[in-house]
Amino acid sequence: MIIILKRGAEEARVQALCAELVGRGLKIHESTGSEARILGLVGDTKSINESWLLANPVVEVVRRVTEPYKKANRKFHPDDTVVEVNGVKIGGGQFAVIAGPCSVESEEQIEEVAAAVKASGAALLRGGAFKPRTSPYSFQGLRADGLELLRHARRATGLPIVTEIMNTEHLPLFEDVDMIQVGARNMQNFELLRRLGQTGKPILLKRGLSATLEELVMSAEYIMAEGNEQVILCERGIRTFETSMRNTLDISAVPMLKKMTHLPVVIDPSHAAGISWMVEPLAAAAVAAGADGLMIEVHNNPACALCDGAQSLTCEQFDALMQKIRPEAEFFGRRLSAG
Amino acid sequence: MIIILKRGAEEARVQALCAELVGRGLKIHESTGSEARILGLVGDTKSINESWLLANPVVEVVRRVTEPYKKANRKFHPDDTVVEVNGVKIGGGQFAVIAGPCSVESEEQIEEVAAAVKASGAALLRGGAFKPRTSPYSFQGLRADGLELLRHARRATGLPIVTEIMNTEHLPLFEDVDMIQVGARNMQNFELLRRLGQTGKPILLKRGLSATLEELVMSAEYIMAEGNEQVILCERGIRTFETSMRNTLDISAVPMLKKMTHLPVVIDPSHAAGISWMVEPLAAAAVAAGADGLMIEVHNNPACALCDGAQSLTCEQFDALMQKIRPEAEFFGRRLSAG
Amino acid sequence: MIIILKRGAEEARVQALCAELVGRGLKIHESTGSEARILGLVGDTKSINESWLLANPVVEVVRRVTEPYKKANRKFHPDDTVVEVNGVKIGGGQFAVIAGPCSVESEEQIEEVAAAVKASGAALLRGGAFKPRTSPYSFQGLRADGLELLRHARRATGLPIVTEIMNTEHLPLFEDVDMIQVGARNMQNFELLRRLGQTGKPILLKRGLSATLEELVMSAEYIMAEGNEQVILCERGIRTFETSMRNTLDISAVPMLKKMTHLPVVIDPSHAAGISWMVEPLAAAAVAAGADGLMIEVHNNPACALCDGAQSLTCEQFDALMQKIRPEAEFFGRRLSAG
Amino acid sequence: MIIILKRGAEEARVQALCAELVGRGLKIHESTGSEARILGLVGDTKSINESWLLANPVVEVVRRVTEPYKKANRKFHPDDTVVEVNGVKIGGGQFAVIAGPCSVESEEQIEEVAAAVKASGAALLRGGAFKPRTSPYSFQGLRADGLELLRHARRATGLPIVTEIMNTEHLPLFEDVDMIQVGARNMQNFELLRRLGQTGKPILLKRGLSATLEELVMSAEYIMAEGNEQVILCERGIRTFETSMRNTLDISAVPMLKKMTHLPVVIDPSHAAGISWMVEPLAAAAVAAGADGLMIEVHNNPACALCDGAQSLTCEQFDALMQKIRPEAEFFGRRLSAG
Repeated sequence: MIIILKRGAEEARVQALCAELVGRGLKIHESTGSEARILGLVGDTKSINESWLLANPVVEVVRRVTEPYKKANRKFHPDDTVVEVNGVKIGGGQFAVIAGPCSVESEEQIEEVAAAVKASGAALLRGGAFKPRTSPYSFQGLRADGLELLRHARRATGLPIVTEIMNTEHLPLFEDVDMIQVGARNMQNFELLRRLGQTGKPILLKRGLSATLEELVMSAEYIMAEGNEQVILCERGIRTFETSMRNTLDISAVPMLKKMTHLPVVIDPSHAAGISWMVEPLAAAAVAAGADGLMIEVHNNPACALCDGAQSLTCEQFDALMQKIRPEAEFFGRRLSAG
Repeated sequence: MIIILKRGAEEARVQALCAELVGRGLKIHESTGSEARILGLVGDTKSINESWLLANPVVEVVRRVTEPYKKANRKFHPDDTVVEVNGVKIGGGQFAVIAGPCSVESEEQIEEVAAAVKASGAALLRGGAFKPRTSPYSFQGLRADGLELLRHARRATGLPIVTEIMNTEHLPLFEDVDMIQVGARNMQNFELLRRLGQTGKPILLKRGLSATLEELVMSAEYIMAEGNEQVILCERGIRTFETSMRNTLDISAVPMLKKMTHLPVVIDPSHAAGISWMVEPLAAAAVAAGADGLMIEVHNNPACALCDGAQSLTCEQFDALMQKIRPEAEFFGRRLSAG
Repeated sequence: MIIILKRGAEEARVQALCAELVGRGLKIHESTGSEARILGLVGDTKSINESWLLANPVVEVVRRVTEPYKKANRKFHPDDTVVEVNGVKIGGGQFAVIAGPCSVESEEQIEEVAAAVKASGAALLRGGAFKPRTSPYSFQGLRADGLELLRHARRATGLPIVTEIMNTEHLPLFEDVDMIQVGARNMQNFELLRRLGQTGKPILLKRGLSATLEELVMSAEYIMAEGNEQVILCERGIRTFETSMRNTLDISAVPMLKKMTHLPVVIDPSHAAGISWMVEPLAAAAVAAGADGLMIEVHNNPACALCDGAQSLTCEQFDALMQKIRPEAEFFGRRLSAG
Repeated sequence: MIIILKRGAEEARVQALCAELVGRGLKIHESTGSEARILGLVGDTKSINESWLLANPVVEVVRRVTEPYKKANRKFHPDDTVVEVNGVKIGGGQFAVIAGPCSVESEEQIEEVAAAVKASGAALLRGGAFKPRTSPYSFQGLRADGLELLRHARRATGLPIVTEIMNTEHLPLFEDVDMIQVGARNMQNFELLRRLGQTGKPILLKRGLSATLEELVMSAEYIMAEGNEQVILCERGIRTFETSMRNTLDISAVPMLKKMTHLPVVIDPSHAAGISWMVEPLAAAAVAAGADGLMIEVHNNPACALCDGAQSLTCEQFDALMQKIRPEAEFFGRRLSAG
């Protein structure tokens, strides 16, 4: 951690600050330049709050030199983490496709989609039961009944299930879910993250719409700090000024997250653009950029979907997509996980 | 609601869509231009999902003509809502200053700050007990103990208390809180909003860092749809590309939110910039732009604050601020509420 | 074009507006819904300014139904445009790699880099002579001398040259340049665009840091409206909140621009991230997403580059990149153009 | 300037880097912490390029400690600069209102508006002759004829004139203009800035839609580095995600720019929101935040304006605005400059 002092900072106050820092077990290396006087703090600065330093009247700038995340940090865990979801591996060269409807709507719908995506090569089944919707007047999901329908579909197909949680009070309902998803709007719902860290279940953590990559990793760190290291990061499009699509896929997140962390990185091209015809080129780009998996919305009848139909592929379109993704993944040296 | 059809849309499919819409009780006005064919839907379109329409292969664009919020809409409630928090009025010409530390740290701290801000003219006392922090390694607040200390401070000063909730499971602890705050990161924690709508308590709803004003109003609508119309909207700075301050105060939010809704609008200049010397000019701008109140961070010793010291005013600075705000509010024809 | 009228708009004023629109040769289709009254304008609305309509006190909202660009519009030119730069084809399945240093620094540097990138398979040589720099104290390029060095390098290697123009007054210097580049900061320098439209030369138009795709296409339209249809669009990273890299590559721009327009689309992964190790995964993603070419910074000694060394590949790294890009382009069915 | 070295950086390369830096006249202070090794560079680092350092394989992070602007820097010029435009002072407590139409459209229009805004208390007359328009099919301004009409209006009213330049080739036409405006889209047209720096004329420099404040100041530095210190900075709204208005006024820019620089700061509330009814609250906020002036669009018949009618005030609305701004400016201790 580096502290740049203000010009003309009162010496007595500087000495008092240094004394306090030394009292906290740090060593101080001082440099005086022609334009600035700098304190370099040596030791464990994790407990030193930047805002506390900035509030001191002699301090101009505080810069942290090391990353604020530990458990997720690639520097301390050079090897890729491979997350195993009820037998399906993601990461470390294993590429997994998660597919299914935006929301579970009926037994018929989820069973039909589950069978189709399994046949086309998906490794996991997604489906929303609790739905975060901008409007209180929109369909909010089948909730507990939706979870029950997902379990049926798992029984029928053998595909592990992935579904979103919105509240810690619903945790008992998720005991039998294979991977719990945290949605973009809850990426910084820290109470929820902490509790998921106590479950030991694989967690799919989606990036917030305007979150930086470091914020995403810090949210993963919340889960991991509680002892659960089974975290998959998911980039699903960020908010930009572009109006021709819903969000903008941040493809650079793939190589950067893999450099910052050892966790698997999955891309959701369906939410990224919000337009079904864009799923294929974005999915292809994700594979090329080094992603460990894809999350794709598929609906047996998108024109009747209760939610996000515009971005859903039909079962046939998903099958065509898999016929392109499979050889591409192989071209790039990855192995497709089977459900 | 307006639907623009794709060029060359198959007539049979268009007719099928029209039949379905008519079946849902809507009338359809059709216009055919040289470049586009348009369906205007007449009737109650609140139940019609845009994404459902977009998934239809004949549909190119869907545009909603009317606002998706009803209860918060100024059009249906022309008069200003005045929220009363344990006797203190906010809105409709009553201007209230909410002040206190970012987080409650000790009995001595909160009592000293509470007495000071009351003496300077604050109408409500703020203080964080449950703190949303980006890092799991940062101070997370005194939690239940912090709420207890706030109640003490209320007893000592008579100031109603405002504090943030992070999880529905904590609701029983907040029964005795005068106004419950929803933080920026929880603005779209819809389960929390819904439950707060069932409490009947005044709610201070902070805008998310990258939320549009309509999204903020839709989150208020979640609370109001459950029957609780005591909602105050708070602009606290949005994320922009600027690096010289933490966030960028969106001063335009004040007149625009007051045009969109009938709810009081409060500005938090402390979080907006994250720098104590900027609080005064931003507070002055907020009054001039028509805000109904201010939320200001005050600490008896900012250099020792456990959280956000860099943006906190000292008690003396807050007193000086109030001596400027009071005549300015009067200049602009507003009455300062007393605590 | 659709006009939504204000509630309670005065009838006489509405009639006056309609009369004026009819006088301008438009037909009006009116729809009256339960919540809004709508005028649909039929005819050539290109001359109707949205702001002029919005200034009318009876108008609430104006929505344009058709795209404001004509010459660049894919709807009117379904086939891909293939731009030919001194014999090298870009677009329509022909994939071209443009490579070279950020700025031309010396005869030795540009000759060495030119020979190396040619040997590795680049089809065009880039190099900056006029450099837009944020600071007036930074190296501003060799200017006319740099152009001269580029011509030497072209003579030596046979590679067509691409270089940036910053001012219409420099146009005579660019007469012998094969493709003229418009930088991101000049994307809306409309006087420059117009004059480039009168040259008949291939233009490489870079997207502004915060420009929407429609704005980029409108800038291409400026060039095309003057009669020059040889325009290549270049996505080079947009400004976002991310701090771990300089810009964020908008990979979705590739499929979306190719849907909106018939022009070739090139990706610049060097500027997008500003980090040399990220060039390879981003270039791979660009090929997969359907780009028609790449623009890559290569320097014979990046650690001594006068500009943007951090993002430059060495000649060896560029060679390794080309060995990956070539088979990938073939995998995706594109042919590499040779210089 | 601070350099953080990579973990495990090869010692020979570190020594080579240090030797080179020492050879450039710098001293090096080294600190070795538990987690990082840091070089503090002491001396004149203005000539050291960050990207050059980042390209060195031993360098992880480079941080500049001092601001990159000198001439505009408040630290070296503590007193406010007062810019005088043909006798009208702006800055240092003198508050000036610049008013007039978005574009000059006819002699009758500009004469009528000029007389009206003079009568209401404007100190300078604005009017666009060369108009930057997103579409090549929109009205592009009366160009040289517009400048001529502005000169007529100056003769009639005595108000100094302010108008935008788009190209260095037009400079001869601007010789008789009192203050030359650089538009937001040309904020980083460095060739134009440099040439304006050679004129000695007052320059009104508008902030780019997504420019940081430091970038704006660096553009002022381009002008000042050529010897012209008569620069006024203008905040006119930044691009954000908000859709209910055109841009978002960054009110914080006022206090921050005044801290960074000694230059006057003017607010343009008309372009900021793009909506006429928002001009008044935003103008009031600008005065309260400490702005040195306002730039307001006024049209004698906004519903017929060829450009930006939706944001123009009528002459009557402008008069009403001035009746509010005048006492507010006095309340905040500023003197209104007269034209």
